Amino acid sequence: MRERVAVIGAGSWGTALAIVLAKKGYEVTLWARRQEVVREIETTRINSHYLPEIVIPESIKITADLEETLMQCVAVVLSVPSHAVRETVRRVRPFVTKETVLVNTAKGLEIETLMRLSEVLKQELPVELHNNIAVLSGPSHAEEVSRDLPTAVVAASHRRQVAEYVQDLFMAPNLRVYTNPDVTGVELGGALKNVIALATGISDGLGFGDNTRAALMTRGLAEIARLGTAMGAQSLTFAGLAGIGDLIVTCTSLYSRNRRAGIQLGQGKPLDQVLAGMGMVVEGVRTTKAAYHLAQKYGVEMPITEQTYQVLFEGLNPREAVSKLMLRTRTHEVEEIVVNRQDW
Amino acid sequence: MRERVAVIGAGSWGTALAIVLAKKGYEVTLWARRQEVVREIETTRINSHYLPEIVIPESIKITADLEETLMQCVAVVLSVPSHAVRETVRRVRPFVTKETVLVNTAKGLEIETLMRLSEVLKQELPVELHNNIAVLSGPSHAEEVSRDLPTAVVAASHRRQVAEYVQDLFMAPNLRVYTNPDVTGVELGGALKNVIALATGISDGLGFGDNTRAALMTRGLAEIARLGTAMGAQSLTFAGLAGIGDLIVTCTSLYSRNRRAGIQLGQGKPLDQVLAGMGMVVEGVRTTKAAYHLAQKYGVEMPITEQTYQVLFEGLNPREAVSKLMLRTRTHEVEEIVVNRQDW
Repeated sequence: MRERVAVIGAGSWGTALAIVLAKKGYEVTLWARRQEVVREIETTRINSHYLPEIVIPESIKITADLEETLMQCVAVVLSVPSHAVRETVRRVRPFVTKETVLVNTAKGLEIETLMRLSEVLKQELPVELHNNIAVLSGPSHAEEVSRDLPTAVVAASHRRQVAEYVQDLFMAPNLRVYTNPDVTGVELGGALKNVIALATGISDGLGFGDNTRAALMTRGLAEIARLGTAMGAQSLTFAGLAGIGDLIVTCTSLYSRNRRAGIQLGQGKPLDQVLAGMGMVVEGVRTTKAAYHLAQKYGVEMPITEQTYQVLFEGLNPREAVSKLMLRTRTHEVEEIVVNRQDW
Repeated sequence: MRERVAVIGAGSWGTALAIVLAKKGYEVTLWARRQEVVREIETTRINSHYLPEIVIPESIKITADLEETLMQCVAVVLSVPSHAVRETVRRVRPFVTKETVLVNTAKGLEIETLMRLSEVLKQELPVELHNNIAVLSGPSHAEEVSRDLPTAVVAASHRRQVAEYVQDLFMAPNLRVYTNPDVTGVELGGALKNVIALATGISDGLGFGDNTRAALMTRGLAEIARLGTAMGAQSLTFAGLAGIGDLIVTCTSLYSRNRRAGIQLGQGKPLDQVLAGMGMVVEGVRTTKAAYHLAQKYGVEMPITEQTYQVLFEGLNPREAVSKLMLRTRTHEVEEIVVNRQDW
């Protein structure tokens, strides 16, 4: 008998991962919150809102019934927006056994608690399931994964066997999965890059160029790593797929909602209008708020996050924000190198 | 009296830097190798081949006479292709004093000797000038710098005063200059990113997506840092503007000749045809050869460089090269993290 896998959330990433798993021979059930999405996929095999150009294989079962989705599954792939993770886990909890592996694929932070999403899962799940939690992250536009374009991602878990299980679960000819024990780093990289995507989008929207974007991404990665290591992550993780890799995709591709939202902000559109026009969750907006507060909590300097926060929530003029970043007094590129070179 | 600065080489970057310096009030002489470029700029104030949309200020003197260019100058900005650096320095040497600061802005390696360009300068200059050598690098398309779009670059020198002199020389409202003592890292970052730009161009030319490009860039940066640290560079430099910053610009922008050349290779055009059609030096082609030999010399694994070398010089099919990279057996993302976590 084929193993059953539940994918919770029929957004673009959940749908793409369901297709990957189905092609690998798993018996996949995809849960959609809204009945009309179930009906559309059942009748047309297309998820027109989230993945319009991809035909969803007949072998994927689609339902809005959570109990039916989770019945006898060996793994649960969570693919809901980050603000819905806690409530979704509560609803999932009654139907999973202590052998079930739970893979979170959302990239964000819970803004009320400033928690990473795997921490939210831990808080909502019984202790015997804590070791079964993994996260999947990295540069992976859903559209491209479902078109089978070569992609590399990271599976992180505190337990090596669980990370390797998730690696085996998703590994496919054009989907490479690497493992990493640094759950904190992998989650923070995936969440915080959305803040920098908004910032670079704003720069693009102002008509600035590739040089400006690259400078913002480089300095942005440095501040993500600064906060991350203060929170216990490994700095090398930020040089990897879940760090710079995901940052690159999110800040340079037009698929990225966060970048597109930033571009409109840079062009002068107010935040509420931008969000109303997107029709999908823009994770970076909430994440900017969380990152701003985390920087204060951990006493870490995050100038790009701070300026993005001011533009989003305090009406700072975007052009002024970029000027402020350009006119900062810092002069050595990497303080750590200079500090260690007392002869210089 | 205004200070005189010589810019050697009227390519796009030399011309753009001459404009930056002239706007800051320096008395700038721009040296062009070819008399027809001198004539064109003198009569039209346009460098149509390299920077067609920019008007060159009248205050910049243009000449093909090296002695006249270098007379009484306080700084020499070298902006010739990397293969011409040695010969140019030999010609410059007789006209500089021991107070002259020399800034190399070319990004490459000397393929015959595998030397970094500042090492070439050292070899060709008397010992009392060795401390006056600096390099300028980072994500800086010439076109954007001359259009005054916000840009951040790095000035590196073994001597702090020289690095800070170069910082002051170029710093402008929309051009931030950071200093870094790690000359080796800054030079290798600038040179080796062109190899990865060819590789990502090939991937783009094959029709692969943003995910593939981001994975190649992330793993590419890791192999650059691996070689760099083996050669004495600081790993943090590769996380900075001359490392990931320049890599981002070069691998994502259509301004990049290396990327454009890669795209054509990926589309199946042979190397000699690609190069014939470019009309400008494609530094990455030579650099790939040098990097391939450096990897062997230092015993460092550089799979992306190796596959790019095979495509360029040994007729490997580009699609096969990408497949080989995707099918490698490596499974942990960052070996260093796993090695340090024996409980995992």
